[in-house]
Amino acid sequence: MHFMTTLSLFQLAVRVVPRPNPRVAIPLLTPIVSGVASFTIAMFAGPYFIRFIRSRKWGKQIAEELPHHVAKAGTPSMGGLLFTGTVVALTVAYNLRGRQSMLLPLVTIALCSVLGWIDDRLTTVRIGGEGIRARFKFSWLVLIAIAIVIILHIPHLTAPRAQNLVYVPVRGFVAIGLLYWPLAVLAIVGTANAVNLTDGLDGLAAGTGAVAFATFGAIALLSSPPKPFLATFCFTMVGALLAFLWFNVFPARIIMGDTGSLALGATLATVALMLNQALVLPIVGFVFVIETVSVIVQVSYYRLTGGKRILRGSPLHIHLELIGWHENEVTQRFWIVSMLAGMAGFVLAFS
Amino acid sequence: MHFMTTLSLFQLAVRVVPRPNPRVAIPLLTPIVSGVASFTIAMFAGPYFIRFIRSRKWGKQIAEELPHHVAKAGTPSMGGLLFTGTVVALTVAYNLRGRQSMLLPLVTIALCSVLGWIDDRLTTVRIGGEGIRARFKFSWLVLIAIAIVIILHIPHLTAPRAQNLVYVPVRGFVAIGLLYWPLAVLAIVGTANAVNLTDGLDGLAAGTGAVAFATFGAIALLSSPPKPFLATFCFTMVGALLAFLWFNVFPARIIMGDTGSLALGATLATVALMLNQALVLPIVGFVFVIETVSVIVQVSYYRLTGGKRILRGSPLHIHLELIGWHENEVTQRFWIVSMLAGMAGFVLAFS
Repeated sequence: MHFMTTLSLFQLAVRVVPRPNPRVAIPLLTPIVSGVASFTIAMFAGPYFIRFIRSRKWGKQIAEELPHHVAKAGTPSMGGLLFTGTVVALTVAYNLRGRQSMLLPLVTIALCSVLGWIDDRLTTVRIGGEGIRARFKFSWLVLIAIAIVIILHIPHLTAPRAQNLVYVPVRGFVAIGLLYWPLAVLAIVGTANAVNLTDGLDGLAAGTGAVAFATFGAIALLSSPPKPFLATFCFTMVGALLAFLWFNVFPARIIMGDTGSLALGATLATVALMLNQALVLPIVGFVFVIETVSVIVQVSYYRLTGGKRILRGSPLHIHLELIGWHENEVTQRFWIVSMLAGMAGFVLAFS
Repeated sequence: MHFMTTLSLFQLAVRVVPRPNPRVAIPLLTPIVSGVASFTIAMFAGPYFIRFIRSRKWGKQIAEELPHHVAKAGTPSMGGLLFTGTVVALTVAYNLRGRQSMLLPLVTIALCSVLGWIDDRLTTVRIGGEGIRARFKFSWLVLIAIAIVIILHIPHLTAPRAQNLVYVPVRGFVAIGLLYWPLAVLAIVGTANAVNLTDGLDGLAAGTGAVAFATFGAIALLSSPPKPFLATFCFTMVGALLAFLWFNVFPARIIMGDTGSLALGATLATVALMLNQALVLPIVGFVFVIETVSVIVQVSYYRLTGGKRILRGSPLHIHLELIGWHENEVTQRFWIVSMLAGMAGFVLAFS
């Protein structure tokens, strides 16, 4: 061996070494190529899509506390359609035939995108009627979530493992019987709302969302048995989200709106449920969780004390801006937090 | 099976299902935990480190074309020490005993960090003497690169595969004999200089560098046989870089300087050589490559035409700022490009 390598050191001719390629047992190629394809398609569609939304005057009405956010009034909203549309189209075209389980994330992303779109339309038409809107949105979200959990229980559609099983780190898969239903509905509705709250700064929800989908894509690939179709779905989402992010980074040319954020959150939760990793979801989506908790804490404290505030503003990203962080610092540091949360969740998913 | 799951639907008691955990054959835990640990340590060290550098008045002198860059004069430079120091300390403490091959990236990062530090000291003392500095830097870089390639050929230290072998996508491992030497030296010196050029906007080199190291970490994990120590090294680097990025995002509180950029680039190339993936390096480091090419094109065109410019400025990130991209758009879009380049490189490394 040693003599051989010394020999090759003195020979200039190029030769192929009869050594096996480092082949991997995991089907990596399709998911990653799908991600790159999805990015490319959404990137090319982006400028036309933005022009279309602008021509429709679907600009966002802003009613926020921070004065510099007002400058964003009129930024094309409903931009979420750029990535939800790309993902739906690519999944229907390439990742559905013979893979019925993909119907589940597909139904989720489509329904929530439509729900969010209706909500966005109501906002661009007029501000106000928030109470009706919030209740309307919430009721429909719960209905959609129940529908998803029912589909999740159709035999032969999803793997049998998806039924009532939750993976508990260290302990293993645990069947939680009927408890599964409220947990699953809570996961879907909670994540949709949490991403919706997080979607307040340029690039924040799209960046953290892309990291979360990449994490679940990796979990799907390395599960035993691997779930390559679900991984492909996740990476298609990552690619489309990165393309959306291209136009959404500060200063944003497009905003995802509820069209994007509800679909992003609900689909993320659905993917987690299909992997039986609902418990890892709040770890991977740590940023969404702390944003939601900050709102709950703020509102509760306000009500309990009869008008005092514990944070300068809520969700947390508003508070951090108000104590002096640059908008950009908040966004990118939340990205960093989401990457670490993704790494932690990934390890837990296999512990 | 179907009857069983219908049963469990009607039982509320929680029970553990006797199903195997989704164990993975790949040693994922240590690399990822190392990344999180490295991030945490560098995060805690960060504020003290910044105060120390400020107290030393190691601020950066700025001589750039864009007026808003002047505002950055005095931002603590040599910040690269934050991540090179963390990586060296953690590798010596946890990833060296019985793993002599880790000496190689360790020597690279330490030597290049020292070289960069000397260079940064010369800059903070006075601007000027650029010609002497550039030649001095280049000569030392070449010497270090030659030393690294010699170490790469010590038997029993690195895997025998590292000797003169280059992985060619589709074709397999190819022995390139003596050609390996200039290729390896070029990879190290070229990448160090390319990252150095890229390091011109807040968060640019650190973000793209973290993505590149994460990609090679994943390649190291999935190679056959897996190289878990090298993967651990890569993820230690990713964690430390993300912590550095925390303080380095726009508006930056710290700048990596040559201390960081030369070490980052040279170490990245060394890792690629240890994986025999020198050909994938320009794909994974695509952002560094286009930045370098933009400088070469600009300078050549200027000389050939006797003073005309093809780009408004070089490297490319300056050009993009000058044609109207926001600094932040340039940085974050380059991050997105680097993620896609990483995905493409990852696929090629296993094709």
